[in-house]
Amino acid sequence: MMYFEDIVVGSKQSFGHYEVTRDEVIAFASRYDPQPFHLDDDAAAQTHFGRISASGWHTCAMTMAMLVENLEANKQAGLGSPGVDQLRWVKPVYPGDTLRCESTVLEKRRSKSRREMGIFKSHLTVFNQNDEPVLDMVSNGLIRVRDEDAPIVD
Amino acid sequence: MMYFEDIVVGSKQSFGHYEVTRDEVIAFASRYDPQPFHLDDDAAAQTHFGRISASGWHTCAMTMAMLVENLEANKQAGLGSPGVDQLRWVKPVYPGDTLRCESTVLEKRRSKSRREMGIFKSHLTVFNQNDEPVLDMVSNGLIRVRDEDAPIVD
Repeated sequence: MMYFEDIVVGSKQSFGHYEVTRDEVIAFASRYDPQPFHLDDDAAAQTHFGRISASGWHTCAMTMAMLVENLEANKQAGLGSPGVDQLRWVKPVYPGDTLRCESTVLEKRRSKSRREMGIFKSHLTVFNQNDEPVLDMVSNGLIRVRDEDAPIVD
Repeated sequence: MMYFEDIVVGSKQSFGHYEVTRDEVIAFASRYDPQPFHLDDDAAAQTHFGRISASGWHTCAMTMAMLVENLEANKQAGLGSPGVDQLRWVKPVYPGDTLRCESTVLEKRRSKSRREMGIFKSHLTVFNQNDEPVLDMVSNGLIRVRDEDAPIVD
C-alpha cells in the first residue's frame, strides 16, 4: 500500500486502455449530457464536432476508470480529491477511439488541518490512439499519511 | 434561441433539482470510480466521508444534467466547452441529497480563430438541500454567434 510518504514528486506513470464505444457514448450522454451533438450524427455534423462525440464529463469518467484500475495494480491509501485546478477538453473524443493516460506528480504536502492526510498535485494527460491529447488536467489527490505523528514541515 | 449576443455578463440563474439515489451513486461508481468509499458503507466509515458518497465525477455529471435541462427551457446555440478553470468538490454528495445550481456569467468574448463562435465564462455552484455548497467551478462555454460578420472587438 502506497502512502503519502511514498509519493515521489516528478515521478511519471503511463497507464490505461479504454475503448470508447458508440453505445456507451450515447448511453452516458442520454442520461447526463443530452445535447444534440452528443446524440445525433446529423446534429453533430452541423457543428465543429463533425460527428457524435463523447460528453466531456464522460471523458472525465472514463479517465477516472483508468486511474482507479491503475490504483488496483499500485494500491494507494487514497482519500478522494478536493478538486481539479484546470481541466481542458483539448480535442473531441469519438466512438471508436482508444484512450490512455500519462501522469506526472507535480508537488505534495501534508495537510495542516488533518494530520492523517496529505495532498498531492498531478498533471494528467489523456491521449487517443493517434497520440493526440484529448484531455488535460491538473488534479489534486488526498492520501493517507503512514506516520501521522511525523512533524509537518513545509 | 439564445446566441452569443444574448449572453449578459453579470446575469444570474438559479435552476435544477436532482435527487441523488443510492442506486445511482453505486451504479456510477461501480463503472467509473470503484473506490471502496463510493461503494461500501463500512469502507467509507473508515474515511472522512463517513458513509457512501458520490464520485466527484458523478456530481459533475448530475450537474451537467441540470445544466442541459435548464438549456431545454432556455435554448442556447451551445457548442460544447473547452474546459473548466477550477473545479472544487467542496463537500461530499450523499445518497438522499437533493442538488440545485446557481450560476453567474463572469465574462464573454468572441473567438478570434472561429468567427462563428464566442466563449463565455460562468461561475457555477451546486448546493445540497441544506444550502451547503457541494461543488464549485468556473466553466467555459462555447456558443454560436448570431451575426458572424459583426466585427470582433475586444
